[in-house]
Amino acid sequence: MDNKCIGVFDSGLGGLTAVKQIINELPKEDIIYFGDTGRVPYGSRSKETLLKYTRGDIRFLNTFDVKIIVIACGTASSAALPAIKDEFDVPIIGVIDAAVYAAVRATKNKKIGVIGTAGTIKSGEYEKQIKAYDSEMQTFAKACPMFVPLVENGYFDTEVTRIIVAEYLEEIRNQGVDTLILGCTHYPLIEKVIREYMGDDVTLINSGAEVAKYLKKKLTKENLLHDGKCDENQYRYYVSDDISSFEELGGIFLEREINGQVNKIDIEKY
Amino acid sequence: MDNKCIGVFDSGLGGLTAVKQIINELPKEDIIYFGDTGRVPYGSRSKETLLKYTRGDIRFLNTFDVKIIVIACGTASSAALPAIKDEFDVPIIGVIDAAVYAAVRATKNKKIGVIGTAGTIKSGEYEKQIKAYDSEMQTFAKACPMFVPLVENGYFDTEVTRIIVAEYLEEIRNQGVDTLILGCTHYPLIEKVIREYMGDDVTLINSGAEVAKYLKKKLTKENLLHDGKCDENQYRYYVSDDISSFEELGGIFLEREINGQVNKIDIEKY
Repeated sequence: MDNKCIGVFDSGLGGLTAVKQIINELPKEDIIYFGDTGRVPYGSRSKETLLKYTRGDIRFLNTFDVKIIVIACGTASSAALPAIKDEFDVPIIGVIDAAVYAAVRATKNKKIGVIGTAGTIKSGEYEKQIKAYDSEMQTFAKACPMFVPLVENGYFDTEVTRIIVAEYLEEIRNQGVDTLILGCTHYPLIEKVIREYMGDDVTLINSGAEVAKYLKKKLTKENLLHDGKCDENQYRYYVSDDISSFEELGGIFLEREINGQVNKIDIEKY
Repeated sequence: MDNKCIGVFDSGLGGLTAVKQIINELPKEDIIYFGDTGRVPYGSRSKETLLKYTRGDIRFLNTFDVKIIVIACGTASSAALPAIKDEFDVPIIGVIDAAVYAAVRATKNKKIGVIGTAGTIKSGEYEKQIKAYDSEMQTFAKACPMFVPLVENGYFDTEVTRIIVAEYLEEIRNQGVDTLILGCTHYPLIEKVIREYMGDDVTLINSGAEVAKYLKKKLTKENLLHDGKCDENQYRYYVSDDISSFEELGGIFLEREINGQVNKIDIEKY
């Protein structure tokens, strides 16, 4: 057993959808979350900048002596993690491996759609891993840069959301995919609209939920689970910008109250 | 006369709409532009973070011995400039003074609308300055957080833009304003849709264009104009993230080619 914390980070709020799933899957674990709200969004940044920010985020979480780090950000997982995972002693997992694991098992016609930020799609990481699993798989990828602003401004189930979802997903739907990876942890917030457009026959892979299942498997296998011998779980949240707006919107993402549990740090020091 | 450069900065690309106007108004001047593309957008950041970023941006431009600095960012102009302008020896002007100067002269019914980012509207700076000019003025302010993502993703004249413009501006239009300040330098890119919604009787104040006129007046009055005795103007652009995407989109904002004139710097050092 290992009673140290799990470290989780994202560019901002989106990763909280993964934290919600981790709490569901692993209710005995303590979690430290960092949301880089002072430098959000990551989706449109260059690879060089993403490497720099991701390294800083990991160094910050490492100050807490965490047992594992989960990158709950599709962009950092795809554009930065493959290049830097060997630089750190702490195990680091991203959302890609987990989502690919689920998608290749879900598809029957071997046609998988992938949506994410510009940085995620540009990295080509999803396609690479899917084809490494089975070279006969066909992938159809599309960057959806408006989805994060829509989610962050509360456009969950609106006409505007439906129009933009249709614009972005038309080509992927026409290709006849039977599985679609939501490669950004913001996207579950507009899953209803995506599901309506894609139809019930298409399996949606929620990368945040999959990384939670993957994490549970890994901690169990490597005997790193918390022994559960304490009265109360600790969930601590850190951000690089204003606390109050994170507390407010974070409650929606996480579906639980986080007021009073959020602290601000200067991420540029890490 | 003063042949030193004019320094201009913005959170990213939006300020280039002001640079375009400065080049029109002051064709003999040399300009150094900084776009903080590694930390864009500023509109949703807290005041504390905006102060920090704005100070860094000014310190960077000051390394070039500029004769004046123009903050071509509505958010930094409103939420940061009033608090820090006395910290620096170089004169600094923002878009607010210029836009207010134009708006109070344009209005006939003393009803002025103000739109901008969340940070700009939260600062209350526009209302404060308008009422300082004439306490009978009525102001109607509205944060429009989706406008910047729309512009940055090329949604200039689309159905989605029209729906969101109507959502944001309905209340202001119903109040019967005859003047509307576009308090963010991104907004001129969707001016056509805003104009269609507000009607031809409403005067739109383009804060980027107004700051260019204001700058011309100030340099003329204080005898700081360039003497024009050189063969070619120098326009240099610096960014804190990837050069190529800035060159590409920057050309649209500026309506001129900037390939090869853009350099990347590490703004966190300033």
